[in-house]
Amino acid sequence: MPLSPEQTEEISAQRDQTAITRRVVSAGMEEKLYTAFQVLDHGFVRVVDYMGDDGAICQAARVSYGKGTKSVQNDEGLIRYLMRHWHSTPFEMCEIKLHVKLPVFVARQWIRHRTANVNEYSARYSILDREFYIPSPEHIAAQSIINNQGRGKILEGTEAQTVLELLKADSARCYDNYEKMISQEGQQGLARELARMNLPANIYTQWYWKVDLHNLLHFLRLRADPHAQFEIRVYADEICNLVKDWVPYTYRAFEDYRLGGASLSTTSVNVLRRLIKGEQVEMESSGMSKGEWQEFKNIFFD
Amino acid sequence: MPLSPEQTEEISAQRDQTAITRRVVSAGMEEKLYTAFQVLDHGFVRVVDYMGDDGAICQAARVSYGKGTKSVQNDEGLIRYLMRHWHSTPFEMCEIKLHVKLPVFVARQWIRHRTANVNEYSARYSILDREFYIPSPEHIAAQSIINNQGRGKILEGTEAQTVLELLKADSARCYDNYEKMISQEGQQGLARELARMNLPANIYTQWYWKVDLHNLLHFLRLRADPHAQFEIRVYADEICNLVKDWVPYTYRAFEDYRLGGASLSTTSVNVLRRLIKGEQVEMESSGMSKGEWQEFKNIFFD
Amino acid sequence: MPLSPEQTEEISAQRDQTAITRRVVSAGMEEKLYTAFQVLDHGFVRVVDYMGDDGAICQAARVSYGKGTKSVQNDEGLIRYLMRHWHSTPFEMCEIKLHVKLPVFVARQWIRHRTANVNEYSARYSILDREFYIPSPEHIAAQSIINNQGRGKILEGTEAQTVLELLKADSARCYDNYEKMISQEGQQGLARELARMNLPANIYTQWYWKVDLHNLLHFLRLRADPHAQFEIRVYADEICNLVKDWVPYTYRAFEDYRLGGASLSTTSVNVLRRLIKGEQVEMESSGMSKGEWQEFKNIFFD
Amino acid sequence: MPLSPEQTEEISAQRDQTAITRRVVSAGMEEKLYTAFQVLDHGFVRVVDYMGDDGAICQAARVSYGKGTKSVQNDEGLIRYLMRHWHSTPFEMCEIKLHVKLPVFVARQWIRHRTANVNEYSARYSILDREFYIPSPEHIAAQSIINNQGRGKILEGTEAQTVLELLKADSARCYDNYEKMISQEGQQGLARELARMNLPANIYTQWYWKVDLHNLLHFLRLRADPHAQFEIRVYADEICNLVKDWVPYTYRAFEDYRLGGASLSTTSVNVLRRLIKGEQVEMESSGMSKGEWQEFKNIFFD
Repeated sequence: MPLSPEQTEEISAQRDQTAITRRVVSAGMEEKLYTAFQVLDHGFVRVVDYMGDDGAICQAARVSYGKGTKSVQNDEGLIRYLMRHWHSTPFEMCEIKLHVKLPVFVARQWIRHRTANVNEYSARYSILDREFYIPSPEHIAAQSIINNQGRGKILEGTEAQTVLELLKADSARCYDNYEKMISQEGQQGLARELARMNLPANIYTQWYWKVDLHNLLHFLRLRADPHAQFEIRVYADEICNLVKDWVPYTYRAFEDYRLGGASLSTTSVNVLRRLIKGEQVEMESSGMSKGEWQEFKNIFFD
Repeated sequence: MPLSPEQTEEISAQRDQTAITRRVVSAGMEEKLYTAFQVLDHGFVRVVDYMGDDGAICQAARVSYGKGTKSVQNDEGLIRYLMRHWHSTPFEMCEIKLHVKLPVFVARQWIRHRTANVNEYSARYSILDREFYIPSPEHIAAQSIINNQGRGKILEGTEAQTVLELLKADSARCYDNYEKMISQEGQQGLARELARMNLPANIYTQWYWKVDLHNLLHFLRLRADPHAQFEIRVYADEICNLVKDWVPYTYRAFEDYRLGGASLSTTSVNVLRRLIKGEQVEMESSGMSKGEWQEFKNIFFD
Repeated sequence: MPLSPEQTEEISAQRDQTAITRRVVSAGMEEKLYTAFQVLDHGFVRVVDYMGDDGAICQAARVSYGKGTKSVQNDEGLIRYLMRHWHSTPFEMCEIKLHVKLPVFVARQWIRHRTANVNEYSARYSILDREFYIPSPEHIAAQSIINNQGRGKILEGTEAQTVLELLKADSARCYDNYEKMISQEGQQGLARELARMNLPANIYTQWYWKVDLHNLLHFLRLRADPHAQFEIRVYADEICNLVKDWVPYTYRAFEDYRLGGASLSTTSVNVLRRLIKGEQVEMESSGMSKGEWQEFKNIFFD
Repeated sequence: MPLSPEQTEEISAQRDQTAITRRVVSAGMEEKLYTAFQVLDHGFVRVVDYMGDDGAICQAARVSYGKGTKSVQNDEGLIRYLMRHWHSTPFEMCEIKLHVKLPVFVARQWIRHRTANVNEYSARYSILDREFYIPSPEHIAAQSIINNQGRGKILEGTEAQTVLELLKADSARCYDNYEKMISQEGQQGLARELARMNLPANIYTQWYWKVDLHNLLHFLRLRADPHAQFEIRVYADEICNLVKDWVPYTYRAFEDYRLGGASLSTTSVNVLRRLIKGEQVEMESSGMSKGEWQEFKNIFFD
């Protein structure tokens, strides 16, 4: 359960308050505003604020005086053109602010995206909650044999069982001792900034994360990718759902040009030209290394 | 007149449209939204969108679930604390998007603030308007004698008159020839991306500029400063007025701790300690250079 | 002639001074260090300092203790892998500092690349030189008919002649009046920060520009592209030559994966899969818009 | 012992290799290059590369052709002027690359400084070493009573003893179980990207961290401050030593204007003016809050 009754109530109170604004409003986003969408066992993502919509992207691209929407068709066409030609500044004109609860090891990957604003819950100042990510059995996987930085088959039987028990036991013990060290009953109590070092990386933290749409799409392209670690990918997937409702044209173009597309080398382009002409091309005559050829085949052959 | 009747109408249409939102709303900012505030002879600043208010800063600092305002007094105290101790991330949680029309030489200074998003009117794609900044007589000043990068006394008589005439005549002639070169009547017409090179730096351009509140305050601290060039300072002053209505607690703290404050060296602190004890301190015994001593005296002595 | 005899001498004196260092050294870059390579009529690019080489990229990717080069082949393979999979941080570990002299309208495009450090010659503080970019006849081109933001055919005959004369005459007159306004003979002299507004955008400025290799490659990918304006592309081309000598493996991978490659949408990938199978695909059945289909054909068909 | 014999040898081999360069060289920095300076029980900081020196800052500020050093006195004066007036771009023209080994909870604070380049040792790809930060007894302190995010008195007797034992025991057990989970003997072995979540925040990680001098000084100002957590402050202190040898003029100006200085509000400036005139000022008549008055007194009164 990621939320306490008080928190649920606070969120509910936020959703109930409405006001009149002159700003552009995204109906799809208003619907989702503040709601906490559960991710993993104790985590969530929720939109706390947003700025702009599809129209605002076009308006900025045209540096226009009014709302700038000439016609719906025009706007979608312009957005596709901007996406196809890697124009980034108009997409930077939309902004989103998320409240995210996530395990520390996920937070450590996430923070590597530097072009964003972050306020994290402070473990120097406050006491962290006893909440740890424990993977569900179908996500406890072996080290991949082909990819050094990925996971392979699901672990089964006692091996999986052992992993689960160790993770649970160590989390619990570390937290017990964290509490014991900071306790001020009958002792001074260790400083929080020191005690936190005893907590493992599956403990949950939370932050406010604010980012513009261009940088968010870059984040999603890398983190909603099948090669991303499962535990961050589920956050990216949930955010994709939010973006889809917020800026539907942009999301459609993003799906077509980024999520599902491919980035080709000169060598690959040349091989494709030969293949289109009906030529037979094998790895040996392709000019590609083994790794590149494999990746190429995965894209263009069944 | 910075705006055409069509533009005025488009802005007016923007202001008339309202919608219901669940987001936080700044009443002071809503009042000003979209209105073009005139700056210099043909320029303006207008807010096109904004995100957040004073409460949003506190909410982020506390990483809270609800709107987070414990009490009005609490919020102002927290904002002052954050400003005093140079906490920047909570202020980054507010965002503003401006539409600005400004002379190119001002734009060139402005753009040096890199942590912002910009979409500028393209002179490769479009034809620039015949609008040039011509200083009013009271701003035509001589090179400063004491500050190599500033201006001194107001020019008078024929010298001022000559400057005005030269600026006007050169602007007009350059624009005439710009038009002549790109004209497609009876000739092919020079490419716009080339023709624009004939236009002097007092021509007006415009852009959408989006920035978070922390970086905006940094911009204002440097550009609303008496040492900033007058032509950018008037934009900064106008933006100060907008910020005051948008986030009043933050603006008050900013005025106290940044705009009106002072940044002291160790040497200055030591001199102040001696002065407080009633000691007499002269430049020679201060440990400061001539320039530093002058700046120090300007702050603490009448 | 971009350089005065004193400047040539200063550069020559820089090149003559050598020192012993423990840092990694790029032999190819040392050869070019400080030399001003001419670009356009009065501009240049020269390397003032650099940090790192191909090996340093691998060393950072491996977070290694020593120089980290396992073998030359290993290093090139790793660099190709990093480039192919869009790993950016290892390339950020190399840095270059350039001294560039360039027309103001080129500088205005260039500065839009924000992730770089810049010190520009100050026209508030100093007097600009009488140096203007005047295109050579073969670069005076008409507005493009198919691309709204590009140029088309070369202008000929009197039209070209008129353009040249107007550009020269306006530059000369504006500079004459700039000098007249700031002159302190028999008058106070207008402040430089004001007088500069009379100078057209083809005047030359100069700056120190420092950037990491990842962001430099991004700049080159956009600005060495055939769609970039000629006057910035020639700078990008010259920098490509420098990078080729500095980090040869990286430059080779960059040429293959970025400069010559293609970025495909899901739709394009699906069309390619059909074409490879020998299917006939026309625009109508491709799912692409007219613009996309044209771009697609330009890449894959003769 | 932070380094293995092989690592020590690799570093030693790096130090032994020298080359001739045309670049500017900082003699003080060359002396320290590559050497690992121990920090905490298993951590270190070492310079892997650098670019520029004090002269390079002046050269960039002057946008000069040659080495630009007019005279030693001139250079130090210019650097002090630039620092005093918050000019940041010339200091951005120097760059440093560090290899740092540090506990994860320190790394999490450090990474919040976004304007830097980072390559961290990957715990998805590699197995982390069994190295944990265990504070020495004199740094095991109680939660501060006056500062919510700091530490107070040193813990003594059995309380300190218990903390030490818990930290050691939990680190050891978590690492034992990490090894057990990833072991491939008689089982598949859990993926590294999952197993790492069992490791507490006092485990050591390492990274290459590259930053320009301006942003480094900002980092040092915040992290070498007495209010910074001890465990990151010791890294900042060690880096201060490196900067002092690298760019001695800049470091001296930094010490005077930033490390030892004070940032005053308008209210504080006004109180100081009254105090200088010999007026008696108490908290009540100062216009300051209790917190501000206390901070003010700490600076100016004994």
